[in-house]
Amino acid sequence: MVLRFVVKITGKAFNEINAGLMDRYRAVLKGLVEKGFRVVVVTGGGRLARDYIGVARSLGVDSNYWLDTIGIAVSRLNALLLNTILKPYTPPKIPVTLEQVLDYTSIYKIVVLGGLIPGQSTAAVAMEVAEAIGADKVFYMSAIDHVYTKDPLKHPDAKPLEKITIDELEKLLETKSLPGQYWLLDRQSIEIIKRSKITVHLTHYSKPENITLFLENKNPGTIITP
Amino acid sequence: MVLRFVVKITGKAFNEINAGLMDRYRAVLKGLVEKGFRVVVVTGGGRLARDYIGVARSLGVDSNYWLDTIGIAVSRLNALLLNTILKPYTPPKIPVTLEQVLDYTSIYKIVVLGGLIPGQSTAAVAMEVAEAIGADKVFYMSAIDHVYTKDPLKHPDAKPLEKITIDELEKLLETKSLPGQYWLLDRQSIEIIKRSKITVHLTHYSKPENITLFLENKNPGTIITP
Amino acid sequence: MVLRFVVKITGKAFNEINAGLMDRYRAVLKGLVEKGFRVVVVTGGGRLARDYIGVARSLGVDSNYWLDTIGIAVSRLNALLLNTILKPYTPPKIPVTLEQVLDYTSIYKIVVLGGLIPGQSTAAVAMEVAEAIGADKVFYMSAIDHVYTKDPLKHPDAKPLEKITIDELEKLLETKSLPGQYWLLDRQSIEIIKRSKITVHLTHYSKPENITLFLENKNPGTIITP
Amino acid sequence: MVLRFVVKITGKAFNEINAGLMDRYRAVLKGLVEKGFRVVVVTGGGRLARDYIGVARSLGVDSNYWLDTIGIAVSRLNALLLNTILKPYTPPKIPVTLEQVLDYTSIYKIVVLGGLIPGQSTAAVAMEVAEAIGADKVFYMSAIDHVYTKDPLKHPDAKPLEKITIDELEKLLETKSLPGQYWLLDRQSIEIIKRSKITVHLTHYSKPENITLFLENKNPGTIITP
Amino acid sequence: MVLRFVVKITGKAFNEINAGLMDRYRAVLKGLVEKGFRVVVVTGGGRLARDYIGVARSLGVDSNYWLDTIGIAVSRLNALLLNTILKPYTPPKIPVTLEQVLDYTSIYKIVVLGGLIPGQSTAAVAMEVAEAIGADKVFYMSAIDHVYTKDPLKHPDAKPLEKITIDELEKLLETKSLPGQYWLLDRQSIEIIKRSKITVHLTHYSKPENITLFLENKNPGTIITP
Amino acid sequence: MVLRFVVKITGKAFNEINAGLMDRYRAVLKGLVEKGFRVVVVTGGGRLARDYIGVARSLGVDSNYWLDTIGIAVSRLNALLLNTILKPYTPPKIPVTLEQVLDYTSIYKIVVLGGLIPGQSTAAVAMEVAEAIGADKVFYMSAIDHVYTKDPLKHPDAKPLEKITIDELEKLLETKSLPGQYWLLDRQSIEIIKRSKITVHLTHYSKPENITLFLENKNPGTIITP
Repeated sequence: MVLRFVVKITGKAFNEINAGLMDRYRAVLKGLVEKGFRVVVVTGGGRLARDYIGVARSLGVDSNYWLDTIGIAVSRLNALLLNTILKPYTPPKIPVTLEQVLDYTSIYKIVVLGGLIPGQSTAAVAMEVAEAIGADKVFYMSAIDHVYTKDPLKHPDAKPLEKITIDELEKLLETKSLPGQYWLLDRQSIEIIKRSKITVHLTHYSKPENITLFLENKNPGTIITP
Repeated sequence: MVLRFVVKITGKAFNEINAGLMDRYRAVLKGLVEKGFRVVVVTGGGRLARDYIGVARSLGVDSNYWLDTIGIAVSRLNALLLNTILKPYTPPKIPVTLEQVLDYTSIYKIVVLGGLIPGQSTAAVAMEVAEAIGADKVFYMSAIDHVYTKDPLKHPDAKPLEKITIDELEKLLETKSLPGQYWLLDRQSIEIIKRSKITVHLTHYSKPENITLFLENKNPGTIITP
Repeated sequence: MVLRFVVKITGKAFNEINAGLMDRYRAVLKGLVEKGFRVVVVTGGGRLARDYIGVARSLGVDSNYWLDTIGIAVSRLNALLLNTILKPYTPPKIPVTLEQVLDYTSIYKIVVLGGLIPGQSTAAVAMEVAEAIGADKVFYMSAIDHVYTKDPLKHPDAKPLEKITIDELEKLLETKSLPGQYWLLDRQSIEIIKRSKITVHLTHYSKPENITLFLENKNPGTIITP
Repeated sequence: MVLRFVVKITGKAFNEINAGLMDRYRAVLKGLVEKGFRVVVVTGGGRLARDYIGVARSLGVDSNYWLDTIGIAVSRLNALLLNTILKPYTPPKIPVTLEQVLDYTSIYKIVVLGGLIPGQSTAAVAMEVAEAIGADKVFYMSAIDHVYTKDPLKHPDAKPLEKITIDELEKLLETKSLPGQYWLLDRQSIEIIKRSKITVHLTHYSKPENITLFLENKNPGTIITP
Repeated sequence: MVLRFVVKITGKAFNEINAGLMDRYRAVLKGLVEKGFRVVVVTGGGRLARDYIGVARSLGVDSNYWLDTIGIAVSRLNALLLNTILKPYTPPKIPVTLEQVLDYTSIYKIVVLGGLIPGQSTAAVAMEVAEAIGADKVFYMSAIDHVYTKDPLKHPDAKPLEKITIDELEKLLETKSLPGQYWLLDRQSIEIIKRSKITVHLTHYSKPENITLFLENKNPGTIITP
Repeated sequence: MVLRFVVKITGKAFNEINAGLMDRYRAVLKGLVEKGFRVVVVTGGGRLARDYIGVARSLGVDSNYWLDTIGIAVSRLNALLLNTILKPYTPPKIPVTLEQVLDYTSIYKIVVLGGLIPGQSTAAVAMEVAEAIGADKVFYMSAIDHVYTKDPLKHPDAKPLEKITIDELEKLLETKSLPGQYWLLDRQSIEIIKRSKITVHLTHYSKPENITLFLENKNPGTIITP
């Protein structure tokens, strides 16, 4: 039985379209394939998405549907960049539905995608993909290196957590000073994590090698258990 | 400018595949078209979905992705029934993506669909469709006739509400005795309602004529304001 | 060279959405895959199809095209149920064209489908699939356990047949008391059976294990030779 | 309510790729559109289909599925020729499913198609299209100018018929000297004609102007009533 | 008969994702629609395309197919931005084939697209679209304001041309100091211009209002005649 | 690493739909597959394309887009014939985009296609496919047996060339008596050959066995080096 898992990469990783970082992701992902794993990668949109959306909004577009559509297009562009440098393991195009993701995972060792539909974060996409391919692990290459006890930008005494349950994390997100700060994991993501018992391994996007560490049962970030 | 809105019909309305009720929905929807409105209808799966899912689950299927996929297929079957009796206003098939919904709304006066993707309720689909077509009204033909101050099944003193804001409703859903009872409106629905300022007109599914009453500025149910 | 064949299951098998029967189909089909066979399963609509079609008809829908479309949707729902319990051998969705069936049979060991187009029985679909994948055997899990010399419901002296040629069967169907009683095998099915020399192994749908018996050269039903 | 009907043109009409005949079809079909009708045209394959199929067969291809696929491709090529000379009334491509035919008929005044799936004659396609678009008339531009009482090539006393019911025609096809000579109307076509009560106006393919005559309630061929 | 034409906008116009410039394009394009024209807009990729392609290339990707694919994705992102601010005149997605462009032009007043396939410039796409929709005018919003007698960057005495034939332009492109400098109009574009007798109105991308001037028979740039 | 290459067969090879020649192509292509190669074959339209286009043109169609569309349909018919006789190595349908070609080459050993889009020769398609699948060799089964120093039909002293660089060939094509005689290799083909460094092995279409000779490092035609 082939082991499959999902890697979610925050759009921030693409902000500088940093060739060095991309190269390290390539090395890590190809390494995993060579060990026999199969991987689905979900990319975010990042600053470029915000820039394009910003122009549309400044011109009076207020439909969240259309603004999200632009963000999805950027996340797919980022996916395409990764897809291209991961040849020959990847399919000829970026899947745009979960069914395509499933079809491609029957044939290709690495599948890369961006967002799927408006009104859904790429984090939620990653959880849905995990559910669809039957993966119980998502590596979340995030803009922060750990889940903290408090907002680390405001509280110098905030402490990084090694482990946290999804229920505890949900409570933390609801009760903290900035209520509704769901940028880390939104509610739809949390619900899928719970219902499908997905373990999320969170670490900073600038350290792709941490995926390998997690797989060696080391813990360079926070493990969120269902 | 053509006025468009969304009608969400709970799967319960299809439990008995009640020809009389379907006929009344037809009369109401055709009446609206003749007044110049354009409508998108979103149907749920109901008991038939639960039955099919139940068999799959009893045979050991525990993937929420695949179980949801069955539920979506049933919701689309219900959509197809409505679509068929609403000829010649409806397209030749049930759309399965938001883009198809949009394409069809440029050509057909009524578009009927069921679920779109696993991990998303048909209530959330209705809100996304509203967002996509730029509708600010969703008529929610629900299993209850009003939002109540408490769970009416348990509390004889529960009172039906004429109006409630989405923030108040969210609080009500979170704090009531059975926390997380999001069957009425799940979190993803609530988020889209908030972000796109959708007004939800809720009434009981057995009274399709209430849609017309709502449009005449009467209030036979509960109006949930963004 | 991989051996491929087609299994046609009457919609009646799904009437009670009988988990026990489904489980036995699963056991038989997985058993065949493990012996190296590849199988395409075609499912009918059954009572649920008749119920939904009945509502549409009672509301004045008289287009056979649209009524058939509803029947096809139900047959696909039945196909989806089987598809789901046959993971991981099956593709992510129910194919809706013969080309998709062919594409999927290059990748997946079991492919399940329902009807394809209005005006065509699922028996005819099974024969077309056999023709398309180059299978010379169709196992027909039917509402009767044998072809009889006469209508067994009316004639106590009707005798079950072990073998019959398709020409003899055709004559039987044309000359019997109720002319045109093509519910067993309609004319399009008969034509494809003849032109592509398909052998049909007919048995009762409640005995999936008979497929294995047929493959062991036993004959628990009627063999219809081209 | 727009009047729609179907024109079936035998592949023989394309044997010589006769520009003069094509031009007359164009004149007739555009004339009809200008009178407010909407038309779906179904074309056959003709001699070119037989030639390509002949080569494949001579090289050992005996799969009726693949041989039919070639015939369908030729019928679509013929459709494309007509489609091209009927601009601007026609869509950008030849539809390959009934759903596409339906979608196109909502937008374009003339839709042209060839075959749809193996194992189905283009006559049957024409009847299915009629059923799908709700047309009760099919103009059958055939290789013979009338239905005759006997095979006119063999019996000098064969008489052309002005009218015949589909039941009578079916009996005639079954009982005549060459049993099973279903090249005129095969059994699937006959079944759809019966079940959907389609009237077929048959005339010779070399006289496209006869379509107009039929519509003026003249009868230059044979009218087959359901 | 509706008048249709094509506007090609160089990718440079999107380099700064300049909201002001986008707004002016919007004003001009909506103005044209309100005068009864229908427009197809083709956008290039610009600097963002070069940046993403640069990263891929720096990581060793040397397949022109995959590098072009990235450029196409960026050109479609630019198209999506324009598409979004041009609601409600535009379709729900960016077409990716000429057939989709044609289908959309039957329904929507403005259609925006980027590149179509690797190995083809977006200038060539614009010419192909003109050919496909039967437009005889392409407005080329280019990185230069005129065709010059010589390379204006190198030769202070280069003179802007009001008119030039496509044959003269081709000769100019072939004979000038840097032979093969086809960035203005590549050979495929030139061939389509010639064979379909397209007139190209070239002006600087920063002046969208020049489209209106050209349509009023003024000449603010260079007119390239076939 | 599997070796892949492209075979381009001129439409002339299909002019007589010569079974003997098709059989020899089959033998050669199957032979290559059995040696472990994977092949993509691109077919032209030939005389049949010219005939159908001729009728359309004689009826006043002057849109190169629609005329090319007919030519593409014929080239796909020729592709289908080859595809059919090359079972079981080929996919169920003729791909119509480069992405489909790529998807099919992951699954099937031989993929056959015709033209892709109007305004592009099938020679250019062959070069694009080579670029897309990463093949550095195209076998060009052409209407001439060699590249000659002059037009051999006019100049008895024209000499066949064993080798020529693409730059030399381009010059030859531009300077010869009939300027612009790009029927051998058009400019788009030449550009892709150059940019992706493709070696073209040209020989006469009536000698499919020459492909094998080329692969054994013999040279029965002209080798065009990038």
